[in-house]
Amino acid sequence: MTASKYAIGVDFGTLSGRAVIVDVANGKELATAVHDYSNEVIDEFLPGTDIRLDPDWALQDPNDYIEVFKNAIPAVLETSGVDPGDVIGVGIDFTACTMLPTKADGTPLSFLPEWRDNPHAWVKLWKHHAAQPEANQLNEIARLSGFGAILDRYGGKISSEWFFPKAWQILDEAPEVYAAADRLIEAADWVVWQLTGEETRNSCTAGYKAMWSKSEGFPPPAFFKALDPGLENIVDEKMKREIMPLGARAGGITSQAAGWTDLKEGTAVAVANVDAHVAVPAATVTDTARMVMIMGTSICHMVVGESEEIVPGMCGVVQDGILPDLPGFEAGQSCVGDHFQWFVENCVPESYENEARQKGLNIHELLEEKAAAQKPGESGLLALDWWNGNRSVLVDVDLTGMMLGMTLLTRPEEIYRALIEATAYGTRLIIETFNQNNVPIKELIATGGLPDRNKLLMQIYADVTGLPIYVPEATQIGALGSAMHGAVAAGAANRGYDSIVEASLKMARLRDESYQPNAENKALYDLLFKEYVTLHDYFGRGDNDVMKRLKELKSEVINS
Amino acid sequence: MTASKYAIGVDFGTLSGRAVIVDVANGKELATAVHDYSNEVIDEFLPGTDIRLDPDWALQDPNDYIEVFKNAIPAVLETSGVDPGDVIGVGIDFTACTMLPTKADGTPLSFLPEWRDNPHAWVKLWKHHAAQPEANQLNEIARLSGFGAILDRYGGKISSEWFFPKAWQILDEAPEVYAAADRLIEAADWVVWQLTGEETRNSCTAGYKAMWSKSEGFPPPAFFKALDPGLENIVDEKMKREIMPLGARAGGITSQAAGWTDLKEGTAVAVANVDAHVAVPAATVTDTARMVMIMGTSICHMVVGESEEIVPGMCGVVQDGILPDLPGFEAGQSCVGDHFQWFVENCVPESYENEARQKGLNIHELLEEKAAAQKPGESGLLALDWWNGNRSVLVDVDLTGMMLGMTLLTRPEEIYRALIEATAYGTRLIIETFNQNNVPIKELIATGGLPDRNKLLMQIYADVTGLPIYVPEATQIGALGSAMHGAVAAGAANRGYDSIVEASLKMARLRDESYQPNAENKALYDLLFKEYVTLHDYFGRGDNDVMKRLKELKSEVINS
Repeated sequence: MTASKYAIGVDFGTLSGRAVIVDVANGKELATAVHDYSNEVIDEFLPGTDIRLDPDWALQDPNDYIEVFKNAIPAVLETSGVDPGDVIGVGIDFTACTMLPTKADGTPLSFLPEWRDNPHAWVKLWKHHAAQPEANQLNEIARLSGFGAILDRYGGKISSEWFFPKAWQILDEAPEVYAAADRLIEAADWVVWQLTGEETRNSCTAGYKAMWSKSEGFPPPAFFKALDPGLENIVDEKMKREIMPLGARAGGITSQAAGWTDLKEGTAVAVANVDAHVAVPAATVTDTARMVMIMGTSICHMVVGESEEIVPGMCGVVQDGILPDLPGFEAGQSCVGDHFQWFVENCVPESYENEARQKGLNIHELLEEKAAAQKPGESGLLALDWWNGNRSVLVDVDLTGMMLGMTLLTRPEEIYRALIEATAYGTRLIIETFNQNNVPIKELIATGGLPDRNKLLMQIYADVTGLPIYVPEATQIGALGSAMHGAVAAGAANRGYDSIVEASLKMARLRDESYQPNAENKALYDLLFKEYVTLHDYFGRGDNDVMKRLKELKSEVINS
Repeated sequence: MTASKYAIGVDFGTLSGRAVIVDVANGKELATAVHDYSNEVIDEFLPGTDIRLDPDWALQDPNDYIEVFKNAIPAVLETSGVDPGDVIGVGIDFTACTMLPTKADGTPLSFLPEWRDNPHAWVKLWKHHAAQPEANQLNEIARLSGFGAILDRYGGKISSEWFFPKAWQILDEAPEVYAAADRLIEAADWVVWQLTGEETRNSCTAGYKAMWSKSEGFPPPAFFKALDPGLENIVDEKMKREIMPLGARAGGITSQAAGWTDLKEGTAVAVANVDAHVAVPAATVTDTARMVMIMGTSICHMVVGESEEIVPGMCGVVQDGILPDLPGFEAGQSCVGDHFQWFVENCVPESYENEARQKGLNIHELLEEKAAAQKPGESGLLALDWWNGNRSVLVDVDLTGMMLGMTLLTRPEEIYRALIEATAYGTRLIIETFNQNNVPIKELIATGGLPDRNKLLMQIYADVTGLPIYVPEATQIGALGSAMHGAVAAGAANRGYDSIVEASLKMARLRDESYQPNAENKALYDLLFKEYVTLHDYFGRGDNDVMKRLKELKSEVINS
């Protein structure tokens, strides 16, 4: 019997990067290491300057990503004791769209003294929202100039968070930076470039964030010209038309990257991937009808289908976007865990905090304990989960929260439970929308932070949707998924795998415990969901646009 | 110049009775005394027994009322140093409908050993809600048997709190008590009977609580027979057809009552009155177009008009019900201060409690301070003030609360302000309903607990309604109103007054400070009120009965 082989996954988050090293044979995690970005999220002053950023800005320093390679990879090698010669592949996943301008050799403009003081030279993080004017114009012009069908692949709207609004903002506000940028690139692809010396572009970010489709490619120059003549040739001038499928080998570790990481030169590196998408095979899903929910402050809903369908309100459909040779669908709820966090920060009385302290619980645990004693419908409350707008299926950031049914006897745990239920109704509506559009969903796999933190929430989701929910064994699901893609990049010839389906079969597992829907609760939630849908449509589909009018009035009053 | 003359008012509340002694010439308060009821509200066990009461019951002990006379009147005489010979009149006001069964001589059945263990022998307090089945039947049968027009004088529905549902509950559940009762009488009239030895009935409780009208009298025997043959002659058998106007002399203090109170035998006693109604002339209002709001946990809206109009959703219209020779209108919001109390008990975070302690404020004061910094519309929130149902104008106890516009940045003080604004919109809708039905309202006079506790609330009410709000000088407005009626019962010949209008002119005053509407805020609130009305009608008038369905489901779930 030969020695074990290993793969490393590196998951780049919003505040830190995490590396894991896993056994290729079974996915078992041997070591994990986290490295925090020293410049974190840059949203007040440009580092080392007194240049103040506008409120919607969110930048990062690309050097922080290199530091993750330099620190976290050696750390997992050392902790695990694995011989770098037994590491067959490396994969990475990243937040997206997180993008930056570079020179032709990959040097970020922000590294160059002549551009360092220009905010547009830095990485625009996924949650940089200052390109909203460009996004609004893009959506309007696309419809007017005959490119509306492209938008339909994205629920009807391109987000300000995505690639072209961000690129266009550079052109609008800093044309000199735009001109100096030889390349505009996802940070995901950029870090792979730093490891391999090869500029590659992956099908996931290209498809979900940059309007690329496998059959049609990028939108044509005429589309970009309609936005701004300066953008006409953006793809040919600043990007790449060759898009590589997930799991493909981007290249091998360079001698410089070997110095950073202690890995062997030539070790296979997979093309980049996105945190939510890479989680799908790591959650055991390589086929249709099983939806993966990455549940945290928000929920990403990921599923693959048989055929490329236009599903209203989804975030995107991309052939090869999640798994090879299948259309990947992404939908999302923009505010889930955030509801509960808002609630505990703003609405929980002191007596509950005291009770939690006495019982040695955190406040979420106390509320969960109290809320678990209620039956569906017992509170008489119903809420719309729109505290941060609605992504799927309405795609409307101007919607706001609603709750009704309160009486003088309503207790905090009832409100807390109503907020959980509201987010579950939101997920059910997304599932039903997929089902009605030829993308069937038969079971749910939940990962992210929430499944481990709130069992009541998981049971409510099972009861509301009527679907069983399974939970993957791995807690570092993104990093595992990246390591799996590293093993595929290495290939079976190098003791890895030739497909992500095989890798998933061997390296990913579910826990024994699962959440099965309770039929009695389901029947009650069917009644409540019907009420939810009526109110969802009344407030969300134009019967009464009171939420938008109030938001407009609010903005007028604040600015007056 | 002759010595001053004095009048005493006794205000019977839910937990205590308060006496004041005032100078008849100017209404100046010389002394006040409170006596707590030793049996308080009887809602668990019948006193001295282990007989348990059902949840909706609320009884009182008539002896507690006598104890108020015995303690509070001597106390104000002693504290003020007034010679009882200079007290020219006494008036009382009471909660209503608070009623009891007595023998022909006025002895409460609950005083008699043979009935003492029967809950139906005791006083049914205003908030005794166990006669709801009888109220429901009464409303249904009245419509079916051609007496629906009577209901129209009461906003379309007789409340379970009122006289005939309570009397009918006695007949239903304790026919032996009903049979043994020679009289069924408002506690208000009963205490006057105890002072004077004369059984009188006042126009206020007769009109607002017992379906009497000056022009038509009580409903005819056929009406009562349609309810239950046993009730056919209730008026002639257990009540009195002679109804006396407010301010009339019921009689003089008996020798026994003189012994209780230290008052002189023969001192004039006015016919009884109700706490909210007696407040009207004490708040300087003796003419049309000036609405008195008694603002506390709920709001009573009192106004007199030129003619007896049917105003949708009011609590009642009664000729002579508030002031002689004018139709008195009463409307109400069932939940006002209760909203804010619910909020501070259930929804204010520990950090706010700490801040309040540091600043030496109570939590309402801290929230008021923070909420006062906001402009109308700035929070983006809008609520329906239905945490305890809606009295006027929808008359629907099954409605519940609603709030919308919440975001992840919504703060507690914004919710607090939205609740205040919602109750102000409720009042504006009542005012507009009166205005649209030939009962014009031009200004507001606010009394009760809230005006002194929350200046922000008062300003919001002025801004929302667009009307100036004045506040009476007297804080014990009920007791002052009763003393004024005592002075009228004495008459000008005895150095009192011949009419409540004169008494009000001399004895009641407003403060100099008032709340004037701010035009800019009013314009913003006009926009928000329009949104309120749309939602009010959507949820309250049958477009979407989701609140009722949720309440029904809640009750099914709890009882399953």
